[in-house]
This record gives sequence, structure tokens and C-alpha cells, in this order.
Amino acid sequence: MNGADALITTLCDNDVTACFANPGTSEMQFVAALDREPRMRSVLCLFEGVATGAADGYGRIAGKPACTLLHLGAGYANGGANLHNARRAATPVVNVIGDHATYHRQYDAPLNSDIAGWAAPNSLWVKSAETPNQVGPLAAEAVEASYGAPGGCASLILPADSAWLQTDVLGEKITPRPRVQVAADAAADMAARIKAAKKPVVLMGGSCCQTAGTDAAARLAAAGVRVLIDTFVARQSRGAGRFAPDRMMYFGEMAIEDLAGVDLMVLVETTMPVAFFAYPDRPSVLVPEGCDLASLCGRDADGPAALNALADALGAPAHGPMVDLALPAKPAGRLDPYAIGKAIARHMPEGTIISDDAVTAGLPVYTQTKTARAHEWLCLTGGAIGQGIPLAIGAAVAAPHAKVLSLNGDGAAMYTVQGLWTIAREELDVTTVVFANHAYRILGIELGRTGAGNAGPAASRLLDLSAPKIDWLQIAGGLGIPAVRASTAEAFDEAFEAAMTQRGPRFIEAAL
Amino acid sequence: MNGADALITTLCDNDVTACFANPGTSEMQFVAALDREPRMRSVLCLFEGVATGAADGYGRIAGKPACTLLHLGAGYANGGANLHNARRAATPVVNVIGDHATYHRQYDAPLNSDIAGWAAPNSLWVKSAETPNQVGPLAAEAVEASYGAPGGCASLILPADSAWLQTDVLGEKITPRPRVQVAADAAADMAARIKAAKKPVVLMGGSCCQTAGTDAAARLAAAGVRVLIDTFVARQSRGAGRFAPDRMMYFGEMAIEDLAGVDLMVLVETTMPVAFFAYPDRPSVLVPEGCDLASLCGRDADGPAALNALADALGAPAHGPMVDLALPAKPAGRLDPYAIGKAIARHMPEGTIISDDAVTAGLPVYTQTKTARAHEWLCLTGGAIGQGIPLAIGAAVAAPHAKVLSLNGDGAAMYTVQGLWTIAREELDVTTVVFANHAYRILGIELGRTGAGNAGPAASRLLDLSAPKIDWLQIAGGLGIPAVRASTAEAFDEAFEAAMTQRGPRFIEAAL
Repeated sequence: MNGADALITTLCDNDVTACFANPGTSEMQFVAALDREPRMRSVLCLFEGVATGAADGYGRIAGKPACTLLHLGAGYANGGANLHNARRAATPVVNVIGDHATYHRQYDAPLNSDIAGWAAPNSLWVKSAETPNQVGPLAAEAVEASYGAPGGCASLILPADSAWLQTDVLGEKITPRPRVQVAADAAADMAARIKAAKKPVVLMGGSCCQTAGTDAAARLAAAGVRVLIDTFVARQSRGAGRFAPDRMMYFGEMAIEDLAGVDLMVLVETTMPVAFFAYPDRPSVLVPEGCDLASLCGRDADGPAALNALADALGAPAHGPMVDLALPAKPAGRLDPYAIGKAIARHMPEGTIISDDAVTAGLPVYTQTKTARAHEWLCLTGGAIGQGIPLAIGAAVAAPHAKVLSLNGDGAAMYTVQGLWTIAREELDVTTVVFANHAYRILGIELGRTGAGNAGPAASRLLDLSAPKIDWLQIAGGLGIPAVRASTAEAFDEAFEAAMTQRGPRFIEAAL
Repeated sequence: MNGADALITTLCDNDVTACFANPGTSEMQFVAALDREPRMRSVLCLFEGVATGAADGYGRIAGKPACTLLHLGAGYANGGANLHNARRAATPVVNVIGDHATYHRQYDAPLNSDIAGWAAPNSLWVKSAETPNQVGPLAAEAVEASYGAPGGCASLILPADSAWLQTDVLGEKITPRPRVQVAADAAADMAARIKAAKKPVVLMGGSCCQTAGTDAAARLAAAGVRVLIDTFVARQSRGAGRFAPDRMMYFGEMAIEDLAGVDLMVLVETTMPVAFFAYPDRPSVLVPEGCDLASLCGRDADGPAALNALADALGAPAHGPMVDLALPAKPAGRLDPYAIGKAIARHMPEGTIISDDAVTAGLPVYTQTKTARAHEWLCLTGGAIGQGIPLAIGAAVAAPHAKVLSLNGDGAAMYTVQGLWTIAREELDVTTVVFANHAYRILGIELGRTGAGNAGPAASRLLDLSAPKIDWLQIAGGLGIPAVRASTAEAFDEAFEAAMTQRGPRFIEAAL
């Protein structure tokens, strides 16, 4: 057994059984060791940003880490933006980052760089296995670290000689640390504050947005407390049979207006809400004047249990209001994100997983699918576009029997377009939709909000993707995915229905 | 004038007049200010790795920095790998990295990250303009820092409020620091050592590989001294009418064999040669046993002047041997990288700039073009693939009248394939060739060298790109570039000849 074997065996012993990889020379021992450990599924990605985004998607759905395999500091950098998103999603991810042999580093060969420095901003944990005997134990430590709570990225640097030298040391099987529990009297105190408030709201995030949390939150709603979730959450369980909390508005002034008169905001597995960006003369903090902020528990806590304790203390009923299934009529006429949302709501099967990197088109689809069949919605948590395709890959690997939708702005899709090849290669049951408006539409809105005025010719050219128009059918086809273009609401509805009744990769260009 | 105006005006005053951009909300003031400063040419890139690689290519050809415009830490990370290559090429680059407004950072909004931490490993200089009055002066400092010597990346963080607030402070016009000059007696001492050695060689890098340096190196060759260049140099002036130094071999054991018996290695604008990767039982240091190493000057020095001083001290003639033009016959039969090299040699016009990210196919093209018309060859200096298309963009913007060739392995081309759109949008005179062998061919070679044995099914799947086969004609067509596929040597020769006789973007898939 060499160090690479010790690594992969330890990962598999700890139920880390998916590896999203783009290896190079320094990772060849890891690659060869995959042939000796059948429990590990390896998925080749043609760019590291695809691999890291896929690991994020996998972790959000599986509730356990996948590993990535990255080629030194430059490979890590390529995957860094989607690891930033994973960090904001608190997704457990174990990065395996190959490095030069320990004795070779001193020579500063061309690919040498400060790997730990690159990895630090996104990582809960960064260590390097300087000997083969350290590899297994550090792999176990990395898995443990990735769980948090809350979860995050652990980055294990693997020098080539630590991988190729022999060892007989495996890492142990770890148990994730339990989440912090909220004491009953803390919940009772908070219930008293809520009862004393005129207009209290609960703002929740993290694991509260999955069914255990939303079930508990529904009880609060039944007791008359308004419940909101963060604007961008890692995973929301929603649709028919589930509770539908409100969502914090994206634009600060709209959020403040929405919260007018609120005198108590109770935070559960989240922190004070703030604007995504600052703008001249607009609020950064999304808490109305005179509103008290009170934290029931932080991101490291068992939020669903805390919500239930709070509901108990409020004397709330055991069950709250759930959404009734209601599907829209077939959309007609002009194709826009609302029509697309209706078509998606009509046809997506129960259990669908939606990866939303659709930017301006995302909210209309979100609103139109509120009463659709039960599904999971994965947001762009960190604001780094280029997550929509990779996240869908990981979700599909984690949930091979679920239908996965990847919704992408055209600008966002171009970031990690290589991911389409992996969807084709792995024959994943992913339907990719690109909202082809041939613009960075969001920036046209943001330009005005920042006080920068109207775009002149030079500025306009930096927001425009229409010359040349990207032909998405050729792009998807060139990467091995059958693709269709829909230019009307009816055509989209039919194309989407067809995709939902088949298994395997499908691609729809929504020509807006 | 706001901070963004101060920035762009100061950059243009310092002759930084090209901006490779992928902006977001926090950069909207910069974007709007472009309409008020016609000296700045802005080029939209659909991924930050394209923008940073383009800035590298621009700097290598123009000899002065371009700027990039990147969206916070995540945008920087996306561009990090090609900035790693730029760092290794010692290319002057000024990164402008947008950030949240200074007062907004404390709230840790979703896109907040440790920008300076991300930028540090690649940067000579990192500062943040915390007030609008600092923007102009720091922009001038950044330009100065980027020149080195040697050159490198300077990273200026621009908070949104520093950009939108008013200022009347511009940065000054800077003068790059002069390079270190080698003293005449140091050159004389080195000449004496060379004369005393049995088998001396000169190994040179950096600016020595451009004409002033190769002209001087030719004088050493005329005096009987063998001259080599580093394996991967930022820019080599080569072909007919120029001196042809040898090139350090990539694989260590071949390099050591090539240097057998050498008893003195003189380093000029470079450092001790080392293997690209370490392998079990193979050398890391590429200096033969018993060979003395002696540095005439480091990377911060005026290498061409040092070479001339050395040649003078050796009593070398004023001119050394130059390459005579010799074009190959039309290649025939099976298409392979040698045939492609012949076709390129036959048809590329004088002054062509070649961006080489062709991995295993690069060396055959390099050897076949040795006696072609004079051209500039740009190497992958840092080993982070995905540079070939971006570098060509920057080179073409810097040299609008030159023909530019982008040579790419298929695996490498997929990394930054979005760059093809920018070539189309800007109508750059770039001919892109993809060597479609449908494999990470280099890794098949490296797997054996690392002692990992033969690839089994799992390992093979991570080195293979053949299922599905990428259809490059659709990819290039989808991004707006006319494309042809060549499957024979004759077909490639004809396609390449046609591309050379036209201006504007062309794409050839070399079906190997």
C-alpha cells in the first residue's frame, strides 16, 4: 500500500466515495490507486471549476463530502470560485491537492506555488501530508473537519512522494461532531420575546431550509409568526406538501419595505441580513429602524430542533400549513422567464433537484414553481457565477434516481461550459436550460443602482453578449448533449415536457 | 472626476491602454468611466481566466502592462492560474480587483472574501485604495511595481465607494526602474572561467530570448560556447535571420544526458535548471555531476547587455551565426504534429506570434519551425494549461498587424474555450489550432514515469477524452469562428495556407 492507497481507502472507509477530478502529473499515483479501490467513483471534469462545483452539489444533496482531485496551486485556483460558493453554502468538501514531491519544492519548479496560501481563504482546514504515514490520518482529519458544524472545505495537500512511498497506516473512521443544541430555556425566553413583540419575524438559513426545518417553521407560521429564509440558501425543500416561507428580498430597499414595522427579528442558523452589494445612499443592513435582532442559534447549531423547541414554547400546533399542489396552465405566446417557470412547474417530477444559476431569470422560475411538485432548490450562495452546470453534476451523482435541472444565465453558463461534457460522459439525468438573453442583464440593472448613470458605447459593450450571438445548440452538441432551441412559450413547454419524460442529458436553449 | 476616472486616467497617462475585463456590480463605476476615457481599449472576456491570460499575452508582446478588471476575490481566483503563468513569465500585469464598499465589508456579504490573500501568491504588489484620493497614486504605484525588474503582477483592490466618490487626485507618470547592469570586470571574470573550462555552456532566460539577447548569444556561439535557453520561456524570437540556441530538455534524464561532460554552466537571467516534476529515482537538478554553476546575472538584470559584455571579454566577433530560411516540402499522408509543424513553417508569414499550449504536440511544431520565417514563440511558462487561447487574444490586441497562432492541446483548449468568443467579437487575426487527440496524452506518458504502473480501467477513464468525442467545429462555430477539420497532412496544409492568406479569426481542428 502506498500513500495514495492509504488516502483513498481512508476516504472510502469514511463514506467519501465520489471524486471529482482533473489530475496532472503530480496526481498520477492517486489516479492509479483508483483501480485498486472500487468503492470510489471518479468523475473526470475538464476544468477544476467544474470539479469543485460538482463536489458542492454532491455535498448539498448527499449530506456528506465528496472529494476533489486538483493539480497543485494553479488547479486549486481554477476551482477556487466554486469553493467560495461551497464555503458560503457550508457544504462539506474534501479537496485533495497534489503537490511536488517534498524534496522537489525547494527548487521552485514552474508549477510551484503557495498552495496553502491559495486554499486558506476558502478552507476550514488546510494541512499537508509530509510523509506517507501522515496521509491516512490526515485524510480522516480532513473528512471530520469538512463536517464542521457547519460544514465547509477541508484541503489536504498531497506531495507526490507521500503518495508514491509505501505505508501501512490508514486513517480511522471518524464521527462528525454533533451540532450545538439550543437549551429549552433559551427557546422559552425567545418565545416570550416573540409574544411581547408587535410584529416579530423569524429569519432562518442553513439546514432549517430542508424538510425537518421547514416542517418546524410551519408550526411557527401556524402560531402567527412570519417566517423568512435567507435570499440565497444552499438547499431549500419546497413545493407541494411542504411549508413555503417567504424569502428575503435581494434589493435592500425592497427588503426594508417588506419588513416595515417589524420590531423583532429572530435569527435561526443565520446571521444579520445584509445587502448583497453596497450602493450609494441605500442600506447595507436589512433590518428596519427600531427592530431588535435576536439570535436563537448560529450556523453551527441544530436549527430544526431549535425551531421545534421555539414552536413548543409558543404553544404552536404540531403541524403547520403546507402548500397544496397547483400546476399552472400551459404557457402561451412570448417566451420569458415566467413562462419558463410555468413550464418547469407543470412538468418536473416529484423529487427534482434544481441548480439555480439563472441570475435575473432565477426569481421568476422560483415564484412560478412555488406550488409545483415537491423539489429541492439549490441557490448560488456565494455569488460567483458559473456554478449551475457543475452543481447539477454533483447533485446527479449524489441522487442518481432524481431528475436534475440546471438553470443558467447565458453569461453564467459560459463560465463552466466544459461541464456539459461531463454530463454527457457520465450520462447524468440532467436537463440544462440556458436563458439566452445575450447580455449580462443583471449588470444593466446594477449599473444604474450604483449611480454610474446610463451606459455609453464603451460600457454597453462590456454588458452585451450579442455580437456574436452564442449558438448554444452547437455548443451543447459539440460537447455531446442533444439540444433544442425554444423561442416561444409553447415550444419551451413541449421541449421541457419531452426532456422530463426521458432519462439522460438534455439541453434547451431558451431564446429570449 | 470620481475614483474610477482617476484610475483609468492615471493608467492611460502611464500608457496602460488595454483592459481585459469581466466586470460585476462592484466594478460598474469603472465600466461607466470607460466612456469618458477613449484612450483605454476594453475587451470583454467571458471568464476571468481569459482576461488574465490575455493580459499576459499583451504584456509579453507590448513590453508594458495591460490591466485586467476582475470581480472581487472569486473573480480573481478564476483568473489565478493564468496569473500564475504570467508570474512565471515575469510579465507586467496590473490587476484591478473590485471590492465591496469599504463600509460594507464588515457585514461579510456573500461575495466577501480575502482578496489580498487570494492575490498574494501571484503578486509582486497588492494594495487596496481605501479612499478615492488614494486610487490614482496607487494606480501609478501598481504600474511601476508591475515592471519589476523582472516584471510581474501588481494587484490593486478597488472598493466600490473609492470608485464612486469624487476626487481630484491623479497618479503621477512613472518611470520603470532600470534593470541591473553587469559590471565589466564581472563579465571579464566569467570569460576567464569559460576559457578555463573544458565544456562550458551558457543557459539563458527572460529577455535574453528576444532579438537583442539572441543576437548577443550568437556572438558567444561564434566564440565556440554552446548556448541554451530555458525549456519554457515567455517569448523567444526565432526563425530565419535569428540565432537558434538549443533548448533545455523537458525530461530530466534527457537533459542530463544532453549536458554530459559540461563542467561549467553560466546562468544569464535565469536560475539553476530543475526538472518540471519529480519522479522516483530521477534527478530534480538538471546540472551534471562535476559541473560548476555560475551566475552572470539574475532575472532582474539586463541580460542582453551582460551577454554582449561577456562576448566582448571573450573576444567574440561582432556577429554570430544566424538561421537561413528553409521551408519544408508540403507534408503528405497521416496527420501528426510533425506534419502540422511543417505546414505551419511553410505558410506562416514573417512576424507571426505563436501561443503554444499544445502540450505533447508543441515540441514537434517547435522543431519543424526552426528555419521558418522569423516569428515569436510564447511558451506555457507556469505549466497551468488553458493559456493558449487567452494569450493569443492579448498578443493580437498588442500587435494588431501580426498574424497570431494559438496552438492548443484539446484538453488545454477546453480550459478557457470561452476565449474563442472574444477572438470573434474583436475580429482578431488569430488562427486557432486544436490538436484533437481526444486524450490527456501527456498524462499517459507521465503515469508510467511516476512509477504508478499501467493504467487500469478507472485510471484510463481519467486520462481519456474520447467519450464523447468533442466536436470542435461545433464549439468554434457556436462561438462565432469559421472552422474546418483536417484529417490528413495535405488537408491541414491547405486549411492552414487558406487561414494565412486571410485576415480574421480562423479555427482548424487537427483530427489526430
